[in-house]
Amino acid sequence: MRADARRNYARLLEVAAEAVAVQGADVSLEQIGRTAGVGSGTVRRHFPTRRALLEAVFQEKVEALCDQARDLAGAADPRAALLEWAGAVTASAATFRGLAFALIQDHSPPEAHCSTGRLTQAGDPLVRRAAAAGVLTPGVTVTDVLSLVTGIALATEGRPGAAAEAHRLLVLVMAGISPRTP
Amino acid sequence: MRADARRNYARLLEVAAEAVAVQGADVSLEQIGRTAGVGSGTVRRHFPTRRALLEAVFQEKVEALCDQARDLAGAADPRAALLEWAGAVTASAATFRGLAFALIQDHSPPEAHCSTGRLTQAGDPLVRRAAAAGVLTPGVTVTDVLSLVTGIALATEGRPGAAAEAHRLLVLVMAGISPRTP
Repeated sequence: MRADARRNYARLLEVAAEAVAVQGADVSLEQIGRTAGVGSGTVRRHFPTRRALLEAVFQEKVEALCDQARDLAGAADPRAALLEWAGAVTASAATFRGLAFALIQDHSPPEAHCSTGRLTQAGDPLVRRAAAAGVLTPGVTVTDVLSLVTGIALATEGRPGAAAEAHRLLVLVMAGISPRTP
Repeated sequence: MRADARRNYARLLEVAAEAVAVQGADVSLEQIGRTAGVGSGTVRRHFPTRRALLEAVFQEKVEALCDQARDLAGAADPRAALLEWAGAVTASAATFRGLAFALIQDHSPPEAHCSTGRLTQAGDPLVRRAAAAGVLTPGVTVTDVLSLVTGIALATEGRPGAAAEAHRLLVLVMAGISPRTP
């Protein structure tokens, strides 16, 4: 891609991600083009269909979470690093679900399946580091963390203040509702 | 109700609850009558519609969980009591959801709304006792417990071994993924 094509692509993806976060997967390619200040021909060249755009947004979000996990793998406090990453996944989960549903409705295999594998792989070092530092309950896996994060996102979805509530529940899950005193 | 009518009603409800647990809300009144050994006229007298039957099963389950909370409020170990009750709610949550969906699809207000209120009220003494015994993380409410239980049920739904997995995650949530050492 040429420099201006790359800029347009990045700008469209950014606007699309914001639009999806606010109004869900039911976004319009035309509206996104207008907001990004990009002509409809250019929009269609980058994203021939709405599905292509949604897939790109999805992939971008998964990539960002994987990058964040890599960055956090060197953090000084493994517990704080795990909480920060799990918090970021929680914050993205509602959007993910909207995207995954939209992709599934299309009756073609969604990218959602592969994203779980990628997130599992990306988060694994954070869980291992927390275990090595002795701050993880024995037996906890990155799959457990992702299951609980998904559950929290599903349980709080649509409530007023869902994001803050989800984060509060995540902090509770980390600390435990009723930890045994050692 | 006369004694034999009460027996028929109880038997139908028992068979219906089992059928719903196995095959979801899509049960047939005729099949339930046959399994219960009760004639179709009697079935229709007790439950004029499938919806009436599903509502009765739903109410029965909520009642059972409320009764269990009352029984456990006097248990010696408040932490174990809270875990036992939350575990019972977790085990029922998937069935609840199927029932709630079926009742909602009918376009009339479901009993599901009121059941949350009843469970909140029933579980509150268990949470308060755990707090008074110093085995609850400060600030945890019965609503938090029900949110997390719901989330666990939603996140594990449809997986092989969902019930065992849900219970394992509940135990983790009680203990904490990464409890701070005091």
